[in-house]
Amino acid sequence: MSGRTALVIIADGQEELESVAAIDILRRGKVDVTVSGLESGDPIACSRGVVIVPDASLSTATAKCPYDMIVLPGGLGGAKANASSAVVKGLLTDQEKGGRYIASICAGPMALISHGIAKGKRVTSHPCIMNELKDAGYEYSEDRVVVDGTLITSRGPGSAVEFGLALVEALEGKDVVASVSGPMMLP
Amino acid sequence: MSGRTALVIIADGQEELESVAAIDILRRGKVDVTVSGLESGDPIACSRGVVIVPDASLSTATAKCPYDMIVLPGGLGGAKANASSAVVKGLLTDQEKGGRYIASICAGPMALISHGIAKGKRVTSHPCIMNELKDAGYEYSEDRVVVDGTLITSRGPGSAVEFGLALVEALEGKDVVASVSGPMMLP
Ligand SMILES: [Cu+]
Repeated sequence: MSGRTALVIIADGQEELESVAAIDILRRGKVDVTVSGLESGDPIACSRGVVIVPDASLSTATAKCPYDMIVLPGGLGGAKANASSAVVKGLLTDQEKGGRYIASICAGPMALISHGIAKGKRVTSHPCIMNELKDAGYEYSEDRVVVDGTLITSRGPGSAVEFGLALVEALEGKDVVASVSGPMMLP
Repeated sequence: MSGRTALVIIADGQEELESVAAIDILRRGKVDVTVSGLESGDPIACSRGVVIVPDASLSTATAKCPYDMIVLPGGLGGAKANASSAVVKGLLTDQEKGGRYIASICAGPMALISHGIAKGKRVTSHPCIMNELKDAGYEYSEDRVVVDGTLITSRGPGSAVEFGLALVEALEGKDVVASVSGPMMLP
């Protein structure tokens, strides 16, 4: 372990490929990742039917706060759940105040809008929530991964591996990304 | 559902990103996917600690044989378990005799060697088992995805999305791949 920590929050309907790519690649980068279930530690039924058992409930996982990074995957069901959670709002608000990383992909950035996080920053997302982000005053980009200070966003399952590598780069640097990419057989 | 079926066999130590990419993308392509646990239906601890609950034990899943495709993900622990399973040997032997698809990624093709499947065919894999495949008489390629008739192989987690799309192409055709790639935000 590098000593760096990340909290990935998942709920029913979260996109499994986006969730697993972030978790897997962060762990390859030696980041200490906690996968937490929004409502409980019970198994999560993801958007394409993969069932993932979280490491802990979110309430248990918050005992280890602060994390260096909080990751909100996409998948409409899970994204909506995170976007309407008061606990997530509290965590993201503290995370932003502390100048620590917030990362989200696909429909995940819905939570930024609803919780009033990182207003005006440069973001991307799945096109399905582009207009909502623009209307809420974010500077919208169609880049596959967008890094604006400590906010990292990306587009969808097809950019999930690039997103995972960007998270490792933010926490551990380019050399660790290179050491992770080789064995993964990236182009 | 398209009516086409696939069986994904996972065991402890299977690579979660490779497993989930195949399952997720096949299901986006409307293939009816069964995720089976090699030993039982109990949760599987993958190589980077993600815990996946299979849909069924392999013995339950075989009741629905034949499947149009059998998928063996990589991850050394899971690959070794599949490579030493007499049940997997029986399934792959029937699959080959029936002219149905066999697909494997990363260290997964170890099972081809140990079970004597698709001998002499063109394959790829993670470099860690390249010499074993060459020594066993396979024609080795370093392409990211290799399709030789009904045998589909690929290199590692960094090619898992391309592998998933190749599986959809084999079962459902190029038009379905195009319809799946767009919403996934592939380049
Ligand atoms: Cu592997």
